[in-house]
Amino acid sequence: MKGQTVFYKSNILIEDTATVAGPREGEGPLYKYFDKIIEDDALGQKSYEAAEIKLHECMLKYLLNKTKRKESEVDICIAGDLLDELVGCSFALRELDICFMGVYNACATFAESLIVGAAMLESGAADRVICSTTSHFSSAERQYRFPLELGNQRTPLAQWTTTGAGGTMLNKRFGKVRLDCATIGRVTDYGVSDVNDMGAAMAPAAKETLLAHFKDTGRTPDYYDIIVTGDLGDAGNRLLKKITADEGLMLGDNYTDGGVLIFNRAAQDVGQGGSGASCSNLVFNGYLYKKMLKGELNKVLLVPTGALLSKTSALQGETVPAIAHAVSFERIGG
Amino acid sequence: MKGQTVFYKSNILIEDTATVAGPREGEGPLYKYFDKIIEDDALGQKSYEAAEIKLHECMLKYLLNKTKRKESEVDICIAGDLLDELVGCSFALRELDICFMGVYNACATFAESLIVGAAMLESGAADRVICSTTSHFSSAERQYRFPLELGNQRTPLAQWTTTGAGGTMLNKRFGKVRLDCATIGRVTDYGVSDVNDMGAAMAPAAKETLLAHFKDTGRTPDYYDIIVTGDLGDAGNRLLKKITADEGLMLGDNYTDGGVLIFNRAAQDVGQGGSGASCSNLVFNGYLYKKMLKGELNKVLLVPTGALLSKTSALQGETVPAIAHAVSFERIGG
Repeated sequence: MKGQTVFYKSNILIEDTATVAGPREGEGPLYKYFDKIIEDDALGQKSYEAAEIKLHECMLKYLLNKTKRKESEVDICIAGDLLDELVGCSFALRELDICFMGVYNACATFAESLIVGAAMLESGAADRVICSTTSHFSSAERQYRFPLELGNQRTPLAQWTTTGAGGTMLNKRFGKVRLDCATIGRVTDYGVSDVNDMGAAMAPAAKETLLAHFKDTGRTPDYYDIIVTGDLGDAGNRLLKKITADEGLMLGDNYTDGGVLIFNRAAQDVGQGGSGASCSNLVFNGYLYKKMLKGELNKVLLVPTGALLSKTSALQGETVPAIAHAVSFERIGG
Repeated sequence: MKGQTVFYKSNILIEDTATVAGPREGEGPLYKYFDKIIEDDALGQKSYEAAEIKLHECMLKYLLNKTKRKESEVDICIAGDLLDELVGCSFALRELDICFMGVYNACATFAESLIVGAAMLESGAADRVICSTTSHFSSAERQYRFPLELGNQRTPLAQWTTTGAGGTMLNKRFGKVRLDCATIGRVTDYGVSDVNDMGAAMAPAAKETLLAHFKDTGRTPDYYDIIVTGDLGDAGNRLLKKITADEGLMLGDNYTDGGVLIFNRAAQDVGQGGSGASCSNLVFNGYLYKKMLKGELNKVLLVPTGALLSKTSALQGETVPAIAHAVSFERIGG
């Protein structure tokens, strides 16, 4: 590592991706980039937790079908979600004969799974891995805030946890997009204690990771065609622009946020925008990756952001620590 | 990977380990192998969750002191615990300027953290990492079963979550014990739904991983000086011996279990023995590693086992999936 950044020497390639999005995500501006859009967000299950598990399982099976890969051809699934004890992944992986490693950095988990997956490939430990995450609006609301049945009013700074599952199949032989480098984040805590204002808790983590990334790589923001933070939402991404500018890092027109991209805030009543472990995942594996395949984007920096709270820590009056990891992708020949 | 097993080509070396054990663990048979034994398991904190966070933080700082390493010399801390959303690690890492990646496979997390750490070193991504886990009896009881204040009677097959934190510092230059290979587990579910009988839920996962390990390596159990499953407890480890024998794999006198080793069941009122994310960690980083340093053990197979339930999955009537990863250590020159 140089500073906090890992540079990949091998070709760590995206063989393919899969995305299964929820109904509301399917009504958003990125709808045409998702492989599947579900109509019933309960997926015929008895609980939203069971629905989230089924969502992950369906996405993994769809990714295998799409790539015509057998379970035996995938060495490891590196997966995480927002449910306590990662049951959204663990229970989905019961249905597949693939080795499982659970990862968790809240809504930054997708970046972490890519970083672990890339290390498994670059070390020679594995030949093919799937990096996946899932989240579900209704199970997340119940777990972190209130059950939907209570009908609580949402606060002005709240975001909308995306419902969806996405997976990236990595290997070293096939693919048109490669992982170039990744900057691993540290835990930040700027004292935010409002569990309805995740953008403010996570923006400092994004700032620290972006500063480290540009320092370690010697690049400037204009190196990238697009820089996308995970899920700061509208207020959070405006805050990030301010606090990075305070440190001399100017994020320009090529910067946006996944939580902003995934919904049409004016029309969809989603507060500050999307969040959740599937937010940056759906935005990357759906939208950004497909734009890269078409040659419309060549260099992409994805910076998923995670708020490391639990309902217990919040009830005990703790502040909200956060983390962000940055992953740089480049189109081969781009 | 050959089958499910990764063979390490580089020298992935243990630079040192640290263990901080709870009061009851400090009264058990392994007491003299722990670096620190705490007297007050609340560590002066207002909650047991806060105590668990403090335990992890103290252990990490002690490991840095013991090895005379600065935070800037450690590239990544790869850590996990049993608390919802891994707050036992995330909040501890607020206090340290070290990159953080959270991992979770329940009580098999310690093995997973070593596997991720070894991949980060072998891929060249990192030069030095810490792999750590923690668990706390009182926070685990409250989260998974009942608050202690209720005074519930414990069922005959219950185990005792160990209180403690342990860490392994890995690097490629210094050390007398190396990671030789690791077998990554798959999720098993044999239909056990009694949340007080974790040994029965996890024994099949240990069986599957051991069968894969011996098939992939071409070894037999007598290759190792000692084989230690994570935390099956007394009933669970007897069950494992039976179900492996049914498949022709005979575990002999060199096989035992960390949950059995860490307590004196006859004297300590701990049910079937120890469990928890710190159980196999304390047993390895305390007892086994120090026996290896002394040359009393040369080849060790550690097989941490994890039950992948959450309180929600249990309340929803779900069965308990499980996973086990095996890590093979060898003393250099041994």
